[in-house]
Amino acid sequence: MKPIQVGLLGMGTVGRGVWTVLARNAEEIARRAGRPIRISWVGTRTLAKAQDATHDVAGINLTRDPGEVVDRRDVDIVVELIGGVTEAREYVLRAIANRKHVITANKALLAMHGNEIFAAAQAAGVMVAFEAAVAGGVPIIKALREGLTANRIEWIAGIINGTSNFILSDMRDRGSSFATALADAQKHGYAEADPTFDIEGIDAAHKLTIMSAIAFGVPMQLDKAYTEGISQLTGEDIRYAEELGYRIKLLGITRRAKANGSEGIELRVHPTLVPERRLIANVEGVMNAILVKGDAVGPTLYYGAGAGAEPTASAVIADLVDVTRMHTADPNHRVPHLAFQPDQLSNVAFLPMGEVETSYYLRMRVLDRPGVLADITRILADGDISIEAMIQKEASEGEDRTDIILLTHRSIEKRVMAAIASIEALPTVTGRVVRIRLESLN
Amino acid sequence: MKPIQVGLLGMGTVGRGVWTVLARNAEEIARRAGRPIRISWVGTRTLAKAQDATHDVAGINLTRDPGEVVDRRDVDIVVELIGGVTEAREYVLRAIANRKHVITANKALLAMHGNEIFAAAQAAGVMVAFEAAVAGGVPIIKALREGLTANRIEWIAGIINGTSNFILSDMRDRGSSFATALADAQKHGYAEADPTFDIEGIDAAHKLTIMSAIAFGVPMQLDKAYTEGISQLTGEDIRYAEELGYRIKLLGITRRAKANGSEGIELRVHPTLVPERRLIANVEGVMNAILVKGDAVGPTLYYGAGAGAEPTASAVIADLVDVTRMHTADPNHRVPHLAFQPDQLSNVAFLPMGEVETSYYLRMRVLDRPGVLADITRILADGDISIEAMIQKEASEGEDRTDIILLTHRSIEKRVMAAIASIEALPTVTGRVVRIRLESLN
Repeated sequence: MKPIQVGLLGMGTVGRGVWTVLARNAEEIARRAGRPIRISWVGTRTLAKAQDATHDVAGINLTRDPGEVVDRRDVDIVVELIGGVTEAREYVLRAIANRKHVITANKALLAMHGNEIFAAAQAAGVMVAFEAAVAGGVPIIKALREGLTANRIEWIAGIINGTSNFILSDMRDRGSSFATALADAQKHGYAEADPTFDIEGIDAAHKLTIMSAIAFGVPMQLDKAYTEGISQLTGEDIRYAEELGYRIKLLGITRRAKANGSEGIELRVHPTLVPERRLIANVEGVMNAILVKGDAVGPTLYYGAGAGAEPTASAVIADLVDVTRMHTADPNHRVPHLAFQPDQLSNVAFLPMGEVETSYYLRMRVLDRPGVLADITRILADGDISIEAMIQKEASEGEDRTDIILLTHRSIEKRVMAAIASIEALPTVTGRVVRIRLESLN
Repeated sequence: MKPIQVGLLGMGTVGRGVWTVLARNAEEIARRAGRPIRISWVGTRTLAKAQDATHDVAGINLTRDPGEVVDRRDVDIVVELIGGVTEAREYVLRAIANRKHVITANKALLAMHGNEIFAAAQAAGVMVAFEAAVAGGVPIIKALREGLTANRIEWIAGIINGTSNFILSDMRDRGSSFATALADAQKHGYAEADPTFDIEGIDAAHKLTIMSAIAFGVPMQLDKAYTEGISQLTGEDIRYAEELGYRIKLLGITRRAKANGSEGIELRVHPTLVPERRLIANVEGVMNAILVKGDAVGPTLYYGAGAGAEPTASAVIADLVDVTRMHTADPNHRVPHLAFQPDQLSNVAFLPMGEVETSYYLRMRVLDRPGVLADITRILADGDISIEAMIQKEASEGEDRTDIILLTHRSIEKRVMAAIASIEALPTVTGRVVRIRLESLN
């Protein structure tokens, strides 16, 4: 059987992972795909690395020009692993124009230019597959796009950035500060020298935008995502959360909601208190997990490595096998790129963060004197915010100030923000009120 | 767009679930599938129930004869939900002979007659889909058959029987005996009046046989499964396990192994100690979870409801959407029924239980006197079985006997069984040695 010919753009960590796994499991993969899958062209700026990785394999062609690969007539599928957005977009669109199927692991590219890319692919009758763009080796795109198609998806909550989860696990397990845990993550190679992308939730927002689109059948709208990272979290809040039976995780959450009587979609990344009994609260280190709630199936969870050469290669190669198996199906009916048929996307609005309803953990430092708690609870009651649990710490010896920690029931974000401003204005309250959102995920 | 016409055989719990979910989410499902999916025929012995469920929906035809449904020219896909094996097999083969795609939730049918059914489907060029046969709404078949195709699967360990997991959770949480927990499960409707199928691991063996075939590319061989249930477990062992940092779960385990230098596949269902830190150890109640270890992706886990009308319907309808999207693909290359191309199945042997290597929890009641432990450890050493941990309990006031609990390192089952026989023959040991297998799952 004639092999499927693959053109690989980029020979970095993931590119070399794809090469290694395809070579190691070639026989088993061909038994599954029905044809051998062969990388015949590699386009990369770092030719030396590629030569090193591919040794003297017969039949492989290396070039410094990715454009040459996407234009080859003998390439059936282009795998884009060069990263970045501008060039990647150009090569992907050019490959599609050349009627090649495309596989990419590039979440930033899809979150920013997915709508354009999928429209071009639809017009050209080719497949664009992107399992590796979200949660590495975990087949979550396939689960959402194919496994849960019977369901009206209610919400998704995911640990989709391993770097942040490693830092939060480290802060909890070893009582480290954020700075120490970050340095530790950098030492292990889990965080970049400039970690902004991971710790500020930007990477998670890209992945969440993709999941939201395929879960709800809406176009990608990255600019609607609310993004808050973990760099402001303190060990103190992690310990108080634990005392109350919660873990703090950086979650990407997207949910169908109602606000002012009309439907909207929430799209938000932020640190979140989660009850410690939930499986997702027990996902540690760099691992990823996504909890999906469907109206028929109830809650389902998908867990695995969210990054790394071979886990990501696992997802890229699964897409190669998928395209090999399915490219002969009628292009107007086979699995749609965004799970919904392209003429069936809806334009439900995304909700601004102020309209989101969730629960809150509030910590404030107050004068240890009668009436302070009464003032605070009055402000909350006036804002229609009800209290679920409270801890008031005894003031330390010789201190006249103490901490109050409150958990609220579900409330509207803008009301909570207004109440926080009023509480901060009280003369008996020192400094800022710490506000972390809380989700029971049931 | 012309609807896909579905013929439904059986209108029991799952059948009515499929009807309800398809009706409730009709619009969203059609947006995903590209065509409406319509149940046009229902064949069921219990016509009254079907009439009740379908009300006076226009365009639906009811009959007492499932044969009439599978013979209709205007039925594109047959959904078999009548259960049992003999009749189900006949109708499925007849539907295939009529060149209809088939969807079934019938694990017993597939575990016993899957090879015959898939061969017939291949010859007729139709699809047979069975997501609902394993772990209800959890898309584990799709994950194994499509999501993890890059990997050499090393092993699978799954909680795939909700009834047993409910009973074990109940025994641990409330300290109930097996009998009380079973009665509780029956009261909640989680266990049948005759619970043998669930509690003795037979249902789990059916599901494991199916997963093993698609993970390793081998024909289904139910008769090779080793099956041991939970009815002999005592609260005492659950508590001792907990003291040692483990939970006891009924796991279905299938693994590539080496024995005497040649490759073999393990296929076994039995109570298993699992370290409490593993996510799968924390899966409670009737929920299911499957841990899959691939060589590239590492460990991945899939969790959700393993039974119930709507979760099972979720899987059946996902298959309906899959068939709708993919039936136009070249039948010789589209997703193979057993994940591997039908001419690419291998005949790796299954290992007899005696050749399996795993760890063990051993509990024995001994005379509290010098030398007893020396005799026991000598027997284990002679059998090349090394000890990982041990608890010796102080004898209770006025008692001359006490419990010894041992955890072993990985050892060959037949050696452990021989050592147990020797230990039981010691005059200082009372009664039987309790033996429960242990897996670290890392």
